[in-house]
Amino acid sequence: MERTLARRTLLAATAATGTGVAWGTAGRAAAHGGKRGERGVAQGAVDAEVARLERELIALRRDLHRHPETPGQERRTAGVVARELRAAGLTVATGVGGHGVVGVLRGVRPGRTVAYRADMDAVPPKDIIGGGPAAAHLCGHDVHTTVSLGVARVLAPLRTRLSGTVVFVFQPAEETLSGARALIDAGVLERTGVEEIHALHCGPFPVGRFAVTPGYGLPGQDKAEVTLSGPDAPGDAGRLAAKIAALATVAQPQTPADLERLIADAQVPGGPLARFLAVRATAQGDTVSVSYRCWPEERYAEVRADIRRLAASYPGATVSFPADPFPAMVCPEPDGRRLARHLRRTVGRDAVVELHAAFPPFSGEDFALYLDRVPGTYTFLGVRAPGAPVTTAYPHFPDFAPDERAIGLGVRTMAGWLAERTSAAQRG
Amino acid sequence: MERTLARRTLLAATAATGTGVAWGTAGRAAAHGGKRGERGVAQGAVDAEVARLERELIALRRDLHRHPETPGQERRTAGVVARELRAAGLTVATGVGGHGVVGVLRGVRPGRTVAYRADMDAVPPKDIIGGGPAAAHLCGHDVHTTVSLGVARVLAPLRTRLSGTVVFVFQPAEETLSGARALIDAGVLERTGVEEIHALHCGPFPVGRFAVTPGYGLPGQDKAEVTLSGPDAPGDAGRLAAKIAALATVAQPQTPADLERLIADAQVPGGPLARFLAVRATAQGDTVSVSYRCWPEERYAEVRADIRRLAASYPGATVSFPADPFPAMVCPEPDGRRLARHLRRTVGRDAVVELHAAFPPFSGEDFALYLDRVPGTYTFLGVRAPGAPVTTAYPHFPDFAPDERAIGLGVRTMAGWLAERTSAAQRG
Repeated sequence: MERTLARRTLLAATAATGTGVAWGTAGRAAAHGGKRGERGVAQGAVDAEVARLERELIALRRDLHRHPETPGQERRTAGVVARELRAAGLTVATGVGGHGVVGVLRGVRPGRTVAYRADMDAVPPKDIIGGGPAAAHLCGHDVHTTVSLGVARVLAPLRTRLSGTVVFVFQPAEETLSGARALIDAGVLERTGVEEIHALHCGPFPVGRFAVTPGYGLPGQDKAEVTLSGPDAPGDAGRLAAKIAALATVAQPQTPADLERLIADAQVPGGPLARFLAVRATAQGDTVSVSYRCWPEERYAEVRADIRRLAASYPGATVSFPADPFPAMVCPEPDGRRLARHLRRTVGRDAVVELHAAFPPFSGEDFALYLDRVPGTYTFLGVRAPGAPVTTAYPHFPDFAPDERAIGLGVRTMAGWLAERTSAAQRG
Repeated sequence: MERTLARRTLLAATAATGTGVAWGTAGRAAAHGGKRGERGVAQGAVDAEVARLERELIALRRDLHRHPETPGQERRTAGVVARELRAAGLTVATGVGGHGVVGVLRGVRPGRTVAYRADMDAVPPKDIIGGGPAAAHLCGHDVHTTVSLGVARVLAPLRTRLSGTVVFVFQPAEETLSGARALIDAGVLERTGVEEIHALHCGPFPVGRFAVTPGYGLPGQDKAEVTLSGPDAPGDAGRLAAKIAALATVAQPQTPADLERLIADAQVPGGPLARFLAVRATAQGDTVSVSYRCWPEERYAEVRADIRRLAASYPGATVSFPADPFPAMVCPEPDGRRLARHLRRTVGRDAVVELHAAFPPFSGEDFALYLDRVPGTYTFLGVRAPGAPVTTAYPHFPDFAPDERAIGLGVRTMAGWLAERTSAAQRG
């Protein structure tokens, strides 16, 4: 119930924003129905362009990496992005929903409008696993931004063969789950008439592999607070916190072996992560604070009932849920399967791993808010170098260090994929 | 014991940094012993200059206010600061310990080297009371930075009458308690030969008043973790957390009336805040996490013993203190009393409130690290507008809105005070 309400509120807020600024209504006038075929964007042309640009893109990523900016403070990164997009000839809007940047690339042929989203912010010190001295690009957003700029640079000179419109959305403040909301409220989807949205995220898979997520994605999050009364309220609070924590079906990984097991489990159809519940519950005085993530998100109601049931065994306990849950990111199945086919065609049959779980169970993504509105895909770009420790490819670890060969692979696949989607006769 | 160790480590790290960059050894060659007198910087000249600049300074503060930057991301603010200092004719170093800026103003007459510190970062969303959507200047650092720039602009044209050297230290990342350490490690005190350091901080006192803190300041912080065992470890953890929390002598204010009481209590000699302990203790499973602040900081040992004693009644409990406490900020008495006299002379007898407590008991300040090395003062600049709610003058509340008349008062008093300190024949 809360979920529905939250989405309605969001949609109402979005509908209230204006339209018609410079970057608005991109491609709206173009008739749909352009055909993909020999005369469209050829993957060979994309690959040749990527080969030419790859070194430059790696240098660009290193520059972004050296200048990490916390959520909401992506001033310099946004400046680099806008400069690169303009140099490639795109129509660019800056300062969208904070430091957001939107670049519009119009193909010469009629077609659909498809968005590609990259996030720009670095990980704040407190969100680095074990804590860190300063913000750092330990979630791969520097790679995501570079891949997106690479796609823009590759497709721009091919626009005579490109159908429809590609909208490049560079989002601030992903780590605080606030940037997507700000961009949506600024009308980024409506103004450009976006019909689909796609994204890549660095993940702990071998470089050269992509992990597709049809039907899965990432969990949302919900919070509860229970207040106890009676002579041993603090003891009851401690016990209740432990009982609620024991509802969890998956524990935070503590060792590299735990991480490896989690990655393997996520690839097992109907495996241990097909449904899950991750919980954190703490007692302070007579109060228990709970924060949890689950999959599928229909389980929110069930988990809330479980928390109420456990609390009910303490007379006088009161339970409250202070806010609607943050929505899960659910990737539509048909889009994910279609992307898997594109990836197999482009980089080979072995290049595609399929996840059968929302992964990792302990993280959220505000890409969820876009996928609540339009279909699309969210795919993990393997960044683990051969023989490298798993933590070098697992976001938020202090030694996170993606294999940069992933950048060229990301650009090749996404440029081809977006050209395919803008030229699709219709969704399906 | 931990405290001593921590300070030794810090000092060793500092000693290891180099010297001799452009902004180093300022005023070192100048002989001490310049005399303050009729031919020094006259308060009347300062006041006239402030009257001329006040509107411009308020506009500058509003510009900084509109561009809040999180700790470690003060790029734009630092740019404004460097530009203003250079325009005033100071020698400026940028990029010191992150986005730190150091401006050196050399008087024509011989004298001492005295630093003035302003912090530049905004409050991150999570540190806004009740949470906030984005970083915002809700701790008055925009005012602090403006006051410091005002002092530089006022003293620069008076340098023919100025003795010694004023070092303006613009510090990043105060909210994360990491900026002072970074500046000290970069040699900001040693390289310029700083003999004293001073600062103002916005506080919940009527505009026109200053709250001096001789012998007091702000508490540091210490953390503990207790792990319990046995069949009812979670219940024991809940009870132990509550018992440890009950050691507290002061509770977090919940209402405006609580805030008013806290402010009043801090002004009572030997009052309820002359010694205090503020505690947060939570239980998670079989573990209790404790974080506490106390005054005086000699109580750390006592509180640690209390925690051990309470834990000892649970067989098998293990207690650990993962790190040395963060030091308290202790303001030397003679300097504070001397400043109080200067303030009474400059703005009137009623303008000075004296605090008899580390205030507020729930906050820390990395200005502590400077005062561990050189003497100085840390004074609250009253920013509460007549009739305004207390939360508009209490840092980190979302409606914090300092009365801008405080800016001119801050500049007048600090310009005169720094001129007095650089021309002092000797400390004392």
